[in-house]
Amino acid sequence: MTPSLQPHEPSPAQASRPAFARWLGAGNDVTRRFLAAGRIPGLINIAGGLPAPELYPAAEVAELARRAIAEHPPDALGYGPIEGLPELRDALAARFGTPDLQLGRENVLVTTSGMQALDLLGKALLEEGGLIAGQFPTYLGALDAWRPRLPTYRSLLLEGPGFDAVAAMAGAQFVYTVPNFSNPTGRLVSLPLREALVEAAHRTGVWLVEDDPYGALHYEGTPLPHLLHLSGRRGGGRLYDGPVVYLGTLSKAVAPGLRIGWVIAAPGMIDALTMAKQGSDMCTSGVTQRIALAALESGLVERLHPAIVGLYRARRDALCAALTEQLAEWFEWEVPVGGMFVWAVARDPSLDTDRLFEAGLKAGVCVTPSSVFDPAGRNRRALRLNFTLNPPDRLAEGVRRLAVAVRALAKEA
Amino acid sequence: MTPSLQPHEPSPAQASRPAFARWLGAGNDVTRRFLAAGRIPGLINIAGGLPAPELYPAAEVAELARRAIAEHPPDALGYGPIEGLPELRDALAARFGTPDLQLGRENVLVTTSGMQALDLLGKALLEEGGLIAGQFPTYLGALDAWRPRLPTYRSLLLEGPGFDAVAAMAGAQFVYTVPNFSNPTGRLVSLPLREALVEAAHRTGVWLVEDDPYGALHYEGTPLPHLLHLSGRRGGGRLYDGPVVYLGTLSKAVAPGLRIGWVIAAPGMIDALTMAKQGSDMCTSGVTQRIALAALESGLVERLHPAIVGLYRARRDALCAALTEQLAEWFEWEVPVGGMFVWAVARDPSLDTDRLFEAGLKAGVCVTPSSVFDPAGRNRRALRLNFTLNPPDRLAEGVRRLAVAVRALAKEA
Repeated sequence: MTPSLQPHEPSPAQASRPAFARWLGAGNDVTRRFLAAGRIPGLINIAGGLPAPELYPAAEVAELARRAIAEHPPDALGYGPIEGLPELRDALAARFGTPDLQLGRENVLVTTSGMQALDLLGKALLEEGGLIAGQFPTYLGALDAWRPRLPTYRSLLLEGPGFDAVAAMAGAQFVYTVPNFSNPTGRLVSLPLREALVEAAHRTGVWLVEDDPYGALHYEGTPLPHLLHLSGRRGGGRLYDGPVVYLGTLSKAVAPGLRIGWVIAAPGMIDALTMAKQGSDMCTSGVTQRIALAALESGLVERLHPAIVGLYRARRDALCAALTEQLAEWFEWEVPVGGMFVWAVARDPSLDTDRLFEAGLKAGVCVTPSSVFDPAGRNRRALRLNFTLNPPDRLAEGVRRLAVAVRALAKEA
Repeated sequence: MTPSLQPHEPSPAQASRPAFARWLGAGNDVTRRFLAAGRIPGLINIAGGLPAPELYPAAEVAELARRAIAEHPPDALGYGPIEGLPELRDALAARFGTPDLQLGRENVLVTTSGMQALDLLGKALLEEGGLIAGQFPTYLGALDAWRPRLPTYRSLLLEGPGFDAVAAMAGAQFVYTVPNFSNPTGRLVSLPLREALVEAAHRTGVWLVEDDPYGALHYEGTPLPHLLHLSGRRGGGRLYDGPVVYLGTLSKAVAPGLRIGWVIAAPGMIDALTMAKQGSDMCTSGVTQRIALAALESGLVERLHPAIVGLYRARRDALCAALTEQLAEWFEWEVPVGGMFVWAVARDPSLDTDRLFEAGLKAGVCVTPSSVFDPAGRNRRALRLNFTLNPPDRLAEGVRRLAVAVRALAKEA
């Protein structure tokens, strides 16, 4: 080896770069692989939580966008208040307020997607290693959002015998729940459990996050009340100042490309999240906020709803029928009453769904292994299967390919 | 006082909430006060870095938006790749590439505003207390973005005698610079200093951030080469893999309401920032990305440029003329050759510009005190004055009000 002739001037390739932050080594990149898999020709993607693109109301949104910008140039094209356009905050307060739940503009923050709301919660509430109590398995995106703070997690064990909500919350910075059709399990949290969570949050003071992207995707029965509304009943008619932090989004009701979400919470929490948002993106796009306001005020959200629910219900049924036909020997699942996912648990505990994920890719189907919904990556016994993106024939073909992958894996073992 | 009858069930108002993260107590909220001040009737706002709203190309952007959504529904309305739409990344690579600077899609990340790029840099590179070397006074928004990591700062002292760039960078996670018309000072970093910074970054390996929101706002003389291009010349014709991290935005060239920015950097840095963005907002709005792509491809950016530069040059001259007339006794300043700001330093070191900020509000003018650009809040001797938002007569009236405030403050002392 030739000694360097310029020991104090290493070439660009040799100069050592400062280390990246530690959390970058702690994650997984499965979300990127989902999104990338959506672009692999021929692969059937039943992994992601993607809406059916044929439902996007392109013509209507195009016209709303044109009018929003042409008629409101300073709102749409300028910097706006960090908290969001006042008219949009008012519209959201009016939409979620009830006689029992008094909401004002100061209870509402507009966010650049529901994901940003999770990121801001982490920024506002977590020191490194801070404790989060939550339903597990849990939303992968929430784990991604909080990973930079390297948090500690405690499982709520909601359905366990003798569940003690007060004990489960003790010492946590916040509790994370997806009561409506949890991602990934599709499970609906029962009314008694909702009441127990709200009661415990009021007693302990711990923030109770209600992430609700799927609440409107309800295919049977009557929707249960939001934690926010159960909490509001305790407010005695005053402006809401309770522990529930409700997160909503237009991604499932209109289109994810708008990247519009919102937080409804006590004014003190909205203030803290606003400080966090100031250093994240200063304010959400006025273009997309004005489109969102028009979508709410014009009734577009309500007009789209029946078609979305009808299509997704039929696709859920198609996926479950294909599973029954192809995979009942290997997996068990409950038919979800809402949301976007079926949670399929392997009957044989030795079946490793991380390996099945890889085998599925070879067979031409992308599914989500349960490990990504577990901060420790240890749950390798289940799959999350999405039914909203693909039409019934593609779902059936995807499940057929998954069955091929399962058999190939079983033969190897 | 009556003892509580229910010691284990405090009322909602009494339940103690978990503490917010420490950094929330470390900041200031002056940015919010600027943005709020823009809505106080009658107040003249020469504090913020706001574009002239009459320059927003509302009709053109409205039509670009309509077509972007109607003609590209999956791009505009769906989830996109975290890194940005491939076509937009390619367009930015082509725009900044030169024969000396080979750029591909893998060198480009689309961000939800330039502010988000700063946030992502902090997430990807900083542990708590990490060291940042930078020009001071520095951009308030950068301090906001990095505050959650409670960083340590080192001043580069660029114009000091015997400036040693290698020593200044040693041990830093990154160096933050705004070479073109720095916010807040309006200063242009000279070509020899640019070369010294790039040379030192190549020698030490430290990331050299070139934040360039104002580069196109150049009112006299010839623009100097970007740090990115000086660094690219050392790459030997290979795909760029050097230490410069270039940050751009459409906020000044088209409109801030789009919230579209970008990072151009080594692929390894783009990968790390992409992991950070995954947990921040998953992807930037397809609506605004498609509008941005159309604005670049249609030549809108170039068509708007002469009007922007002409208007801002005239306003700079109007502000400086008013300062000469009203405040030369109290302040000194250099006429900036570009950007959006004049940096006025008090002749009397005992004049406290934090107090002048408050006195200005009473007199009906909002200016920015120098303390907000200093992480320690100690610099209280200067003001940042913006000349882009207001027409000449309002600038003159704003300076007249500022002079009233200065005299009132001097009388108190």
